[in-house]
Amino acid sequence: MSEPSGARADPDTPARTAGSVLVVGSGLLGASAGLALRARGVDVALADPSPTAVALARDVGAGRVAGADERPAVVLVAAPPDVTADVVAAQLLAHPSAVVTDVASVKGAVLQGVHRALGRAGAGPEVASRFVGGHPMAGRERSGATSARADLFTGRPWVLVPPPGASAAGEASLQRVLALVADCRGVPVVMAAEQHDEAVAVVSHVPQVAASLVAARLLGAADEAVALSGQGLRDVTRIAASDPGLWVQILGANARPVARALHALRADLDDVLGALDALAEDGEAVGARARVARAIDTGGAGVARVPGKHGASPTAYEVVTVLVPDQPGRLARLLADVSDIGVNLEDLVLEHARGRPVGLAEVSVQPADRPRLEAELPRRGWRVAG
Amino acid sequence: MSEPSGARADPDTPARTAGSVLVVGSGLLGASAGLALRARGVDVALADPSPTAVALARDVGAGRVAGADERPAVVLVAAPPDVTADVVAAQLLAHPSAVVTDVASVKGAVLQGVHRALGRAGAGPEVASRFVGGHPMAGRERSGATSARADLFTGRPWVLVPPPGASAAGEASLQRVLALVADCRGVPVVMAAEQHDEAVAVVSHVPQVAASLVAARLLGAADEAVALSGQGLRDVTRIAASDPGLWVQILGANARPVARALHALRADLDDVLGALDALAEDGEAVGARARVARAIDTGGAGVARVPGKHGASPTAYEVVTVLVPDQPGRLARLLADVSDIGVNLEDLVLEHARGRPVGLAEVSVQPADRPRLEAELPRRGWRVAG
Repeated sequence: MSEPSGARADPDTPARTAGSVLVVGSGLLGASAGLALRARGVDVALADPSPTAVALARDVGAGRVAGADERPAVVLVAAPPDVTADVVAAQLLAHPSAVVTDVASVKGAVLQGVHRALGRAGAGPEVASRFVGGHPMAGRERSGATSARADLFTGRPWVLVPPPGASAAGEASLQRVLALVADCRGVPVVMAAEQHDEAVAVVSHVPQVAASLVAARLLGAADEAVALSGQGLRDVTRIAASDPGLWVQILGANARPVARALHALRADLDDVLGALDALAEDGEAVGARARVARAIDTGGAGVARVPGKHGASPTAYEVVTVLVPDQPGRLARLLADVSDIGVNLEDLVLEHARGRPVGLAEVSVQPADRPRLEAELPRRGWRVAG
Repeated sequence: MSEPSGARADPDTPARTAGSVLVVGSGLLGASAGLALRARGVDVALADPSPTAVALARDVGAGRVAGADERPAVVLVAAPPDVTADVVAAQLLAHPSAVVTDVASVKGAVLQGVHRALGRAGAGPEVASRFVGGHPMAGRERSGATSARADLFTGRPWVLVPPPGASAAGEASLQRVLALVADCRGVPVVMAAEQHDEAVAVVSHVPQVAASLVAARLLGAADEAVALSGQGLRDVTRIAASDPGLWVQILGANARPVARALHALRADLDDVLGALDALAEDGEAVGARARVARAIDTGGAGVARVPGKHGASPTAYEVVTVLVPDQPGRLARLLADVSDIGVNLEDLVLEHARGRPVGLAEVSVQPADRPRLEAELPRRGWRVAG
């Protein structure tokens, strides 16, 4: 432990992107891509309708301000969803040798919009074959270039929608965008636009609507009721705090798949509601409890399919909970002890208990390491719970 | 840092509970209460229909096995919700000088059940005045005495429902249970049974149903779709993994308030669905986007009312994200550096990035400490993101 060397954690490797990248839209996603590409030594030019946004992105190190006659190899359009199609089409026409990709959360509507705009401009299929739809599954609660980070896409799925048909030109376009995703440390997932839109309806858009609907119930609740909130409610409603303007764009552009999934959800809800209405009338209503159980069971089977953090397979770590006095240095001491015992820490969550000078450290370790840790920590003076 | 002293974190203080406590039901909640009370020096006797469960609870230190002629001052019934009322009534009759309380997640149904059972036994109102309904807002994903912990209730709301009427006997009963809650380090919240049931319908039961319904959508989804899951979905669906048997009891016993809240949720859902159906037909449908925006806005206003961890006011910590090589001792080194810099760590979450030998440590600190930490950590070789 003589050298901290956090700086060696992310060794620079040669960029796979050849030529310069023009980032159009200098918000969170555009600036984060700029930071990641700059870290690999790629030349990044930044553009945005707002001169302030461009200057901010430049100041955080995401690239240089784009000039009047850029010759990018790749254009990354990181504009709001509802203008993405028009910006993509304009970039395809402005840079005849560039491949263009985007980051919008819906893909079918963008693809159709691009084709419509190109048709209006009289552009042929060779222009369309330079567009590769994209959607990095990454984001933060905060927006803007000042929240950007070079590792925003690290290990996250990044969906790519190849140009229609199986042309050599389309394949070459896809390769160039795959290189950009690799340089951003994303994990490319190639799929069709419809497939993507169905997928995000279920894994992203329906959860967003459900979180908002559950959170809306709190608005009319008594203060004493809200004071009983626990971690379950906090988890279910966290994303309800997201930007309404952005979500109206996303849900509006993916209306059909989201509506389909929500209709199915409403059918399940009606089944539960019917059972609860019956039980409210008659506490012994035959069959009602079985219907409620089926809904909870089905949910349990569904959640078992959700992969763990960062899209990795769920890892069966075991948690050892340790009481840690809330004094500087105590947690460091605990982790030094864990390390001395020879156990590798897989994950760590620290929680403070209100009104007590003590926190709970939930230390995740490989199952085989747990007994040793639980035996050794108390010998070193730690109190292990549960 | 010469002595770890985790063991000194929880100094014993004199118990407020006078006399012995009989815990009926030796699962997670009963055994946790036993552990907390034992830590204050209270005499705890344990009972359970299962001799194995009692022995387990005794072995983890939750108390002694109850004898044939216990004379408890307080009986804590920690039985499953659907048998709680009958067990409470039996304990009221078996121990004429004891106050009885319970931990079931619904209060109206238990209260009615107790009064019915007492009526059948010909018991008068003086018996009912010894029952104080209770509901500690605490739990874990795991069940059983082996998952019990003395600090399970620390800082958590613990709802108490005083006996009906304003009798001196009822008041004395409430005082005895308040002492027990204090000894368990819970935060007592006194409210009427109906008020409690309406509250938990909104803050606990509706979120549970919504999480299950969202998770159920994943069952028919393609593998590629599920692979795009992010933190939002994980948060919304986490509690869908809860025990169906327990939830059928809870929802069945609180059917009316839950149904009322779910009907309101369905009305909001129908509004969003109508708007999305309109947009699926006609992308320019007038007014549809405003309806979607209203639902998201309302959810945002609702979630803003949710208090932070452990029922405390949300604390405005700031997060400094640091890249940590995935090697034993590195995190300990980081925390030692944070401590050396003189900054107090308020919270810590560690996340591993897939396919990279590096994790992200999200270090929460007081806002005033953030600039210093961001300036000092890189000087010690750490890479700070964001």
